[in-house]
Amino acid sequence: VGTVRVLTDDAAGADALAVFNDIRAKRNTDYVNNFWRALANDPAQLKDTWNRLQHVMAPGALDPLVKEMIYIAVSATNNCSYCVHSHTAAARAKGMTDPKYAELLAVIAMASQTNALATALQVEVDERFKV
Amino acid sequence: VGTVRVLTDDAAGADALAVFNDIRAKRNTDYVNNFWRALANDPAQLKDTWNRLQHVMAPGALDPLVKEMIYIAVSATNNCSYCVHSHTAAARAKGMTDPKYAELLAVIAMASQTNALATALQVEVDERFKV
Amino acid sequence: VGTVRVLTDDAAGADALAVFNDIRAKRNTDYVNNFWRALANDPAQLKDTWNRLQHVMAPGALDPLVKEMIYIAVSATNNCSYCVHSHTAAARAKGMTDPKYAELLAVIAMASQTNALATALQVEVDERFKV
Amino acid sequence: VGTVRVLTDDAAGADALAVFNDIRAKRNTDYVNNFWRALANDPAQLKDTWNRLQHVMAPGALDPLVKEMIYIAVSATNNCSYCVHSHTAAARAKGMTDPKYAELLAVIAMASQTNALATALQVEVDERFKV
Amino acid sequence: VGTVRVLTDDAAGADALAVFNDIRAKRNTDYVNNFWRALANDPAQLKDTWNRLQHVMAPGALDPLVKEMIYIAVSATNNCSYCVHSHTAAARAKGMTDPKYAELLAVIAMASQTNALATALQVEVDERFKV
Amino acid sequence: VGTVRVLTDDAAGADALAVFNDIRAKRNTDYVNNFWRALANDPAQLKDTWNRLQHVMAPGALDPLVKEMIYIAVSATNNCSYCVHSHTAAARAKGMTDPKYAELLAVIAMASQTNALATALQVEVDERFKV
Repeated sequence: VGTVRVLTDDAAGADALAVFNDIRAKRNTDYVNNFWRALANDPAQLKDTWNRLQHVMAPGALDPLVKEMIYIAVSATNNCSYCVHSHTAAARAKGMTDPKYAELLAVIAMASQTNALATALQVEVDERFKV
Repeated sequence: VGTVRVLTDDAAGADALAVFNDIRAKRNTDYVNNFWRALANDPAQLKDTWNRLQHVMAPGALDPLVKEMIYIAVSATNNCSYCVHSHTAAARAKGMTDPKYAELLAVIAMASQTNALATALQVEVDERFKV
Repeated sequence: VGTVRVLTDDAAGADALAVFNDIRAKRNTDYVNNFWRALANDPAQLKDTWNRLQHVMAPGALDPLVKEMIYIAVSATNNCSYCVHSHTAAARAKGMTDPKYAELLAVIAMASQTNALATALQVEVDERFKV
Repeated sequence: VGTVRVLTDDAAGADALAVFNDIRAKRNTDYVNNFWRALANDPAQLKDTWNRLQHVMAPGALDPLVKEMIYIAVSATNNCSYCVHSHTAAARAKGMTDPKYAELLAVIAMASQTNALATALQVEVDERFKV
Repeated sequence: VGTVRVLTDDAAGADALAVFNDIRAKRNTDYVNNFWRALANDPAQLKDTWNRLQHVMAPGALDPLVKEMIYIAVSATNNCSYCVHSHTAAARAKGMTDPKYAELLAVIAMASQTNALATALQVEVDERFKV
Repeated sequence: VGTVRVLTDDAAGADALAVFNDIRAKRNTDYVNNFWRALANDPAQLKDTWNRLQHVMAPGALDPLVKEMIYIAVSATNNCSYCVHSHTAAARAKGMTDPKYAELLAVIAMASQTNALATALQVEVDERFKV
C-alpha cells in the first residue's frame, strides 16, 4: 500500500537482486525488509543507500547500539513510522534492554519538551555556546 | 530578543533565584544560561523542568554522554537552534571527541535521508517489526 | 476513521454538493476523493480550498507536473501520508514517468540529508546569499 | 557562530582542500560557501556529500532548475534557513524568474495548508491511491 | 502494533495499575486508553506524565477546552496521529462544537500556510516584535 | 536579509500599496510589518493572504485571543521564528496576560512531550477515538 510496489526477488532486476543478496549475507538472514524492496524500483538509489548505511552504522568511535538509538531518536522526531519500527527492532537485536529503551524514550520526551519551550520563547543563544 | 525577558538574578523572584542557585551548585559554575533565565518568567515551569532534566540526564542504563548525543539528535531534527548549540556544548564538556561528533552527524544525516525516502514511498511496516 | 465523517453526496449539504459536482466536472471523473468529503463538514473551507487549489495548480510559469512534484516534496517532508498518496497519484496521471519519480525522490533524500547537516552544524548564512 | 569552525583553505587538510578546489573548478568560481567549509571538519563526509550532490543535481529526466526548486521546497518545509538561502540563490543563478519563484512559493503555501488539514482531520487514504 | 505491548491491568505492575486506577477515578470511566497502557512499560514515566498532564490541563487562566484545542493544534502540526485522535475526542467531550472545531481547523491551516511563506522567504523579524 | 526585498511603500506597486493601506486602516496603525512587505513581491499572494487572514481571525465561535494563541502554538511547533514573534506580539495586544501565556507555553511543552512519546512508541489509536 505504498506509492511503489515492494519488489519480490523475481520482480527485481539483477542489480537490485545483487543488493538483496548482499543484505542477506551481511545480516545472516533470509529476510529482506520492505524498505529495500521498495527502494529497488531505483537500483542505483538502493545500492548507494545500502552501501552508505553499512558504512555509517559500522562500529567506530560510537558503538553500533548507540548509533541505532540515535537513529530511533531522529526517526521518531521526523515521525517516520516505518523507520521507528525497523530501527527499534534493530536496536533490540543489538542488545537494547528495556531500561536502555526507557531512558532513550525519556531523553526523546525531555528534549522534545525543551525544544518546544526554547523555540516558543525564541531564546537567544548564549555567546559562550558559539564556537 | 526572545518573546520574554531573560531575567537577571536581580529581576528573578525568590523561587526562580533558588533554581538559579541550584543550577550553579550542581554544575559547579557561576553561569546560568539564557534558557533558564527565560523560563524564570514562570517559576513553576522553571523548577519542574530543571528537576526533570537532572533526573532524565543522570547516569543510568545509558551514560550521560550518550544521552547528550541523543538530545542533540532530537534537537537538530526539531530544528531548535538554541538547543543544538547548548547541548553540543554540553556534550563536548562531557567528553564528545571530534570523531564521536562526526559519527553522530553521519547518523543524523543518514537517518534523515532514509526517513524521507520511507515517508515519500509510504513503505508498509513489515509484520516482523511489530511487537 | 478520521476525526470527522467523510460525507457522501447524500450527507453533504447543497453548498458542499455544488463543490463535489465542480470537482467531478473539472476533473472529468465521477470520483470525489476523501479529502474533499472530509472538508465538506465545513462547506466554506471546502469551497475556498478547492478554488485556490485550482488557481495555484493551473499552468503558468511552471507546468502542472512540476507543481505536482513540488507538492509531493512538501507533503513528504511534512509527513502527510494522505497528501503523499494523492499527489503521487496525481503526478503520475499528469505524466510523471518512473525516471522522473526516481529523480524527485533522490532530490528529496539529498535535501533532507543536507538540511539535517546544516541545521546540526548551525552553519551561518553566507553574506552573498542574502538579498 | 556554528557548532564547528568554518575552515579556511589554510585550516583545511589536504583531503578537504581537494574538495574545495573541485567545487571551485566545477562551479567556475573562487568562492566556497560556508556549508562545505563547515563539513570540512569531517573530510570523508565532505567528499561523499559533494560527490552525491553533483550526481543528484545533474541534468537527467528532470532539468536542474526543477531540481533546485524541489530542493527549496524541501528545505523550506524542513525549516533549514541556510539551505533556503543557498538553494534560492542557486535557483536564481540557474534561471528561476520572479514569476517562477512566485508560483513555487504559492505551491509550497498551498501544500502546507492542505497537509495540515489532511493531518488534523486524519483523512483515510482512498483505495484508488494505493499501488 | 506499536513498539511495545499495550499492558492490560493483569500485565501491569502494581505501580502502573495504581495510575490506571487513578485515571479511571479522575475521568469517571472504566476505560484506560492505549497511550497510558503503552507508557506503563515504564511505570515512572507513566506516573510522571499523568501527574503533569493533570496539572497542565486543569482550569486556570485558560479554560480546559481552550487548552485541548491548543493541544490539538500542536499534535496536528507535529503529525502525531494518536494524539490528534485522542485530543479531538477529548475536546468534543469538553464541549467543542462543530463551529468551534471548524474555526480551529481554519486557524491551523492559515498558520501553516503563513509559516511556510515566512520561512521560505526568510523574513526578518521586525524590531518592534522583539521584547 | 530574506530571500526577497522587503518593499517600502515607494517600491511597492499600486496593488500592493492598496493592501498596505488596508492593513494600516484595519489595524489603526501606520506600521506595516515585514511579512506583508516581503509578500508584496507577489501582489496577488499578498492580497489573498491578507483577505483570508482577516476572515479566519475574525471573532466567531472562538474569540480572537484564543485564535492568536492557537496561531502561536502552530507557529512554535512549525518553528517559524518570524511567526512566533509576530503572533506573540499580536496576542499580547489582544489581551494575553502573563498567566495565560505561561499556560499556553505549558500546554505546548506538554503536548510536544506526549506527541514524541506516542510517536516513538507507535501507539495504536483506540477504536473509540475513531468517528
